[in-house]
Amino acid sequence: MAKISKISGFPEWLPEQKLAEDRLISKIKKVYESYGFVPIETPAVELLSSLNAKGFQQKEIYLLSRAAAEQDQEADMALHFDLTVPLARYVAQHFNELTFPFKRYQIQKVWRGERSQKGRFREFYQFDIDVIAREQLPLSCDAEVLSAFDQALSTVGIAKHQIHLNNRKLLLGFYADLGLSDQQSQLTIMAVDKISKIGREGVADELATVVGLKNDLVERILAFVEQRYSSDRFGELEKDFCIANTLFRDGLLELGQLIDLLSVSARRNVIIDLSMARGLDYYTGTIFEVYFPDYPETSSFGAGGRYDDLASHFINRKLPGMGASIGFSRIVDFALQNNLLDISQKTVVQALVAVYSEQQRRECNLLAEKLRECGVACEVFYQAPKLGKQIDYAVSKGIRYIFFLDANENTIEVKDLETKEQKRIADIKSWVNGL
Amino acid sequence: MAKISKISGFPEWLPEQKLAEDRLISKIKKVYESYGFVPIETPAVELLSSLNAKGFQQKEIYLLSRAAAEQDQEADMALHFDLTVPLARYVAQHFNELTFPFKRYQIQKVWRGERSQKGRFREFYQFDIDVIAREQLPLSCDAEVLSAFDQALSTVGIAKHQIHLNNRKLLLGFYADLGLSDQQSQLTIMAVDKISKIGREGVADELATVVGLKNDLVERILAFVEQRYSSDRFGELEKDFCIANTLFRDGLLELGQLIDLLSVSARRNVIIDLSMARGLDYYTGTIFEVYFPDYPETSSFGAGGRYDDLASHFINRKLPGMGASIGFSRIVDFALQNNLLDISQKTVVQALVAVYSEQQRRECNLLAEKLRECGVACEVFYQAPKLGKQIDYAVSKGIRYIFFLDANENTIEVKDLETKEQKRIADIKSWVNGL
Repeated sequence: MAKISKISGFPEWLPEQKLAEDRLISKIKKVYESYGFVPIETPAVELLSSLNAKGFQQKEIYLLSRAAAEQDQEADMALHFDLTVPLARYVAQHFNELTFPFKRYQIQKVWRGERSQKGRFREFYQFDIDVIAREQLPLSCDAEVLSAFDQALSTVGIAKHQIHLNNRKLLLGFYADLGLSDQQSQLTIMAVDKISKIGREGVADELATVVGLKNDLVERILAFVEQRYSSDRFGELEKDFCIANTLFRDGLLELGQLIDLLSVSARRNVIIDLSMARGLDYYTGTIFEVYFPDYPETSSFGAGGRYDDLASHFINRKLPGMGASIGFSRIVDFALQNNLLDISQKTVVQALVAVYSEQQRRECNLLAEKLRECGVACEVFYQAPKLGKQIDYAVSKGIRYIFFLDANENTIEVKDLETKEQKRIADIKSWVNGL
Repeated sequence: MAKISKISGFPEWLPEQKLAEDRLISKIKKVYESYGFVPIETPAVELLSSLNAKGFQQKEIYLLSRAAAEQDQEADMALHFDLTVPLARYVAQHFNELTFPFKRYQIQKVWRGERSQKGRFREFYQFDIDVIAREQLPLSCDAEVLSAFDQALSTVGIAKHQIHLNNRKLLLGFYADLGLSDQQSQLTIMAVDKISKIGREGVADELATVVGLKNDLVERILAFVEQRYSSDRFGELEKDFCIANTLFRDGLLELGQLIDLLSVSARRNVIIDLSMARGLDYYTGTIFEVYFPDYPETSSFGAGGRYDDLASHFINRKLPGMGASIGFSRIVDFALQNNLLDISQKTVVQALVAVYSEQQRRECNLLAEKLRECGVACEVFYQAPKLGKQIDYAVSKGIRYIFFLDANENTIEVKDLETKEQKRIADIKSWVNGL
């Protein structure tokens, strides 16, 4: 017999967990569709040359090969590791068939060949939205993406969320104003981004030793990045840092306009976090990450930002974009681990038709057909054992109603397992209408 | 710039096509759930040792490797090529957590490293249902799976379908009765299964040369397999072939009982086709394939059958099952090629909020929030160009209503692009209720 080894990093749920996951997916889809995002799905497989375009760590890519290929013609195929590179390829490939601004949502598995650690998945769902425009993408799109993202997270309803918001221009302008070189700014951004992991001391140490900054600069940087402002205190940020640098002023202006255009809910859930930098990603303006503040030990559950140029690797056009990605499998896994997801529903079936004897199965099937026509999901018990066994089955699956059909007497009775009430019914339709 | 090469065999749809595909998926899910099937999803990746269990053609399997693995620890991982082997592994692995009979539906991509031919996909969706029982699986489950499968296809509504039905025992019993050895029976089944491709002559030739059968046997076999009976003519089949062979009688009995237990619709759509054998698959009783008779040049769009033993490779238990698989991507591709799928809807958005000037965007956003709260999907135009351009956008995306907000006058007007009517409205809620 083959050994059944769980492959670590490849999560798999029980049916009741999958039902709960599917409900979340439906809810998020509905939110994104209500904002005008349309669905796309790209193959799991892309050319390796496409995936390498953005300089992703090659060793995390899963390459494909045929088990017994005559000629290895597939050697350049690999599984996608995110949904952004496939989006870039998709937009370039279908450029003339799409309406711009192109607003798409996409929920798909992605694969990353990481060493498997606790909570690190190698196959997981991402749920992305992006708006792509031709040439110019106004700040209204940043606000729309953030508002939709905020509403999606509210709809998921697993835990209270907080969106940490920042702007790359603000950061780069601040460091330039301090006299840092471009390279020093990059190194500083990378060091500061780790503040939640390595702490104030750790960052100070790295700024001094790795970036080579003097003590007073280190202190000024730490004083800056430790600031947090709720969106209604944006005015204070403007007063606290009167810096003339153009890039800084641009960033500040963008941040203010963005907050102004957010939905009421998103404005409430946003906090300006000057330490957040999104590593060395390709973002150029707005950046954000989402956290569950009641679970301070958890890392970000989603993130996104504005980029100037989506697909220059594939097409000779300027396509600025703004996107948000939900770490969907991470959220579901977190919710399951912390019992925050209702998994009591084991089936969507509401009614079980009990079977007295195999002779009556045809009539039982017809009754079930009628119930389904009236929109009631139902099962006919697969055998005809004693009724107690059939009732046990209904209870174990969480099915509420049991139908008893007496084909000889031509009567139907329904037992409500919740109220324990049992009554004879004259007609399926009126029973359904009374639900 | 990276070349954008379409990788053949990996289909990808435009948003309006994906919207249509998603509607079909929802419809099929709803049907299967109404019969009590619960969803599962397995990773795309399985251990190669699991995939090899059923003796699938190894060369069609896509193996995974890490682009720069330090040690090639993933060498034994591969993409699944169907959903049956993952189901077997899943049932064995979660045996103690599942309720039996275990009825699951599963829609996922599968991957087959075939040479790409016209219409042959290397990545495609399968939509499967199976019922797995412990020890005994009554014929009622065969009927349930077939009835649900039939209703799913009716709900898809792409083309009229016909389910070709047969029984392995009937076939094997007939050939045994003719005096064929087991090996000759197998070869005969394989030859006859090709009748739609190579024709009567081709089969006759193969039976004579490959199987080594004499002319009169060949004629008797052809006379048998060419028979087709609608379900209400089942009695004639019994009369036409009075064969005493036990296996044949068993098959006949099963077929009759199965037809008797089918839903009204499935009984109408079934045709008994004695030539259909499902190759050398692991089926042991009921077998079926579905065709679109109005498109006689197309091959089967789905199939399934009864098997005695799902997971003996993984677990020391007898788990008989009955399953049906819809070639979902094939159906969608067929429907798109033949313009049988409504792809006129380019978005689910019903309303566009026009923006006169950027100063009014905040009010426009608030109006959109109100519309969404009332369940109306809507967009706010991302810029504030002349109204004509915004109306063009609504038309191109198929959005029916445009909202004009005059923030100074505090008035809202709605234009219905279908009736061309424009009117002032007092209140969003009452407008929505009037839709």
